[in-house]
Amino acid sequence: MVKTICGKKDFIEFLRGKRATFLLSVSVTKTIEIEGITQAGIPGIIDLTPTLDSEFVTIGEVRSLENIAETPNGVPTPALITRAIHLKKGFGNIEILNLGLTKNPKISHFKEYNFNLSPSQSIDKGANIDALELFEQGIEFGKKYNCRDDYIILAESVPAGTTTANATAKVLGYKTEGMFASSFKNSPSSLKEKVVDRALNNVNDDMNIFEKLGFVSDNMLIFNAGFIFGATLKYKIILAGGTQMATILLIMNSLLKIMGENYNLKNIALCTTKWVYEDKNSNIKGLLEQLSFDIDAYYADFDFSTSQHPALKLYDEGEAKEGVGAGGSLCYGLLNGVTEEEIIKQIEEFLS
Amino acid sequence: MVKTICGKKDFIEFLRGKRATFLLSVSVTKTIEIEGITQAGIPGIIDLTPTLDSEFVTIGEVRSLENIAETPNGVPTPALITRAIHLKKGFGNIEILNLGLTKNPKISHFKEYNFNLSPSQSIDKGANIDALELFEQGIEFGKKYNCRDDYIILAESVPAGTTTANATAKVLGYKTEGMFASSFKNSPSSLKEKVVDRALNNVNDDMNIFEKLGFVSDNMLIFNAGFIFGATLKYKIILAGGTQMATILLIMNSLLKIMGENYNLKNIALCTTKWVYEDKNSNIKGLLEQLSFDIDAYYADFDFSTSQHPALKLYDEGEAKEGVGAGGSLCYGLLNGVTEEEIIKQIEEFLS
Repeated sequence: MVKTICGKKDFIEFLRGKRATFLLSVSVTKTIEIEGITQAGIPGIIDLTPTLDSEFVTIGEVRSLENIAETPNGVPTPALITRAIHLKKGFGNIEILNLGLTKNPKISHFKEYNFNLSPSQSIDKGANIDALELFEQGIEFGKKYNCRDDYIILAESVPAGTTTANATAKVLGYKTEGMFASSFKNSPSSLKEKVVDRALNNVNDDMNIFEKLGFVSDNMLIFNAGFIFGATLKYKIILAGGTQMATILLIMNSLLKIMGENYNLKNIALCTTKWVYEDKNSNIKGLLEQLSFDIDAYYADFDFSTSQHPALKLYDEGEAKEGVGAGGSLCYGLLNGVTEEEIIKQIEEFLS
Repeated sequence: MVKTICGKKDFIEFLRGKRATFLLSVSVTKTIEIEGITQAGIPGIIDLTPTLDSEFVTIGEVRSLENIAETPNGVPTPALITRAIHLKKGFGNIEILNLGLTKNPKISHFKEYNFNLSPSQSIDKGANIDALELFEQGIEFGKKYNCRDDYIILAESVPAGTTTANATAKVLGYKTEGMFASSFKNSPSSLKEKVVDRALNNVNDDMNIFEKLGFVSDNMLIFNAGFIFGATLKYKIILAGGTQMATILLIMNSLLKIMGENYNLKNIALCTTKWVYEDKNSNIKGLLEQLSFDIDAYYADFDFSTSQHPALKLYDEGEAKEGVGAGGSLCYGLLNGVTEEEIIKQIEEFLS
């Protein structure tokens, strides 16, 4: 069952029975090189996580590495959830937005949009992103984007992405204390705070929004803020994710005044997991409530309580929580008659 | 599960979740009049099989005869498999390509493309097909063809079609020994070889490819070679079948040099059944390996081992094997979340 975080259920009910394009936006930020900042991947090669996630969601195997990315605690990537949904109720299309990887996914036939972007730098030294240009690229791409299904589910795989999201929200002046989730059960909040503070030390009040974002944000957040402004003129978009997706909305909120009134944001909603919704260390609702426009947000009332698999139990204990569009995918499956039981059985099969 | 015969899994994974048009190409060759050459139908009225298959796949009943075509051994037509898939996960459209029947299917609303073709003659005396004209008709139709779904599943129902396919491949100079399946478990290979040899006696080396095909082939093979060249400019196409569909590829392969380089064949794949893939008397892979271009080919890992029905058990023993797009349909079902169990249950219901 899909439950409402804020807004009304009409938006999500409208999508029931419809077919979605799953758009996976992937990028690397060198913020991952800060020891202990993320567990979204295999230590030493965390930069490969977005590449492996892209491969696994599309073709069901990882080609750029032998085993699928697991966290050090043995929590498997949420890409498993997304892939399981795809097997039970296929997305009409899966497409990759390559926003700066160290290694391109080895897949053919699937559309991969390439913008010749490099991984952004670590935000403790300055991300070094031309944010205005990237944002404009996003708008242009969004305006031209042709969706061959009924709507878009926009997902992400960006290790350390909750840290860059946290810095992004903070630099834009939003309340961020206790707001941001991470892939850890026990979020290393003091480390994260230190990194965010170091990042914010690189900016000053004379900078405009884009200059600030160029120092503390990541490619995925900035590009997608533009993409959504552009694509939502024609299409309904589900932001499939937690606090990172909420941060894209915060960026859009900050830019609304300079964007003028041609953009309506009635075509956007956010879908996340129950693990994010119930997370004690973050506050997705608190982030969304800072928006000056109304937003519909939902979570998939799905967990692994009926599963016996120890790696999956870790999700219920608060590890991983979200990513690779897991929450949005779960909502998609539930909206299309896939049962919790079928989903769990499929994921367990992957792990067996 | 869909398994790979050759190539990579990317093509078929790309089709996951997408909706297909099922295009059933049907024709009669008077080769069926050779006693014992085929068991694809009811003795004496085997020419009706394509008509009955067209009716059963589209509307779920046979109108041109009281009972659905069975082989003398009581093996029901593979149209049952295709129809079962259609009930579980509907094709977006089912359309009939009438390439020469003795009786038109009695259906309305469904598109039936009619090319005013007559059944071709028996190849032991010469099929008497204007192959060049038919091929060009295929190209023109393919170029103009408007698919209202995401891709095309191209299937066939042509009794004695493996014999005409065998003769076709042989006349084009391909290795054919032990390569061709038939609807029989114990293929009457000596009879088949004799017919093929008699057919090849009617051609000589001075003839061009089309003249040769006009003597030994059938309407379905020739027309579809053209159709695929034309339609693949815009659409992905699954060739749903075994050795007959492989023969269409062999014809295309032989014609590639005169076709020029505007045609790319990356948009084609073949999907067949496990019964064809595992058939000891034929060699689908051996046929595909003779192509000078790369091809992705798959089979549906599906059988009736969990069924109790004696008529279905005959499939697992090697009768029937393929036809009416059974293999491609099974892949379509499996790619769209239909389970083996559901398929078997549905087919058993037809027979009860």
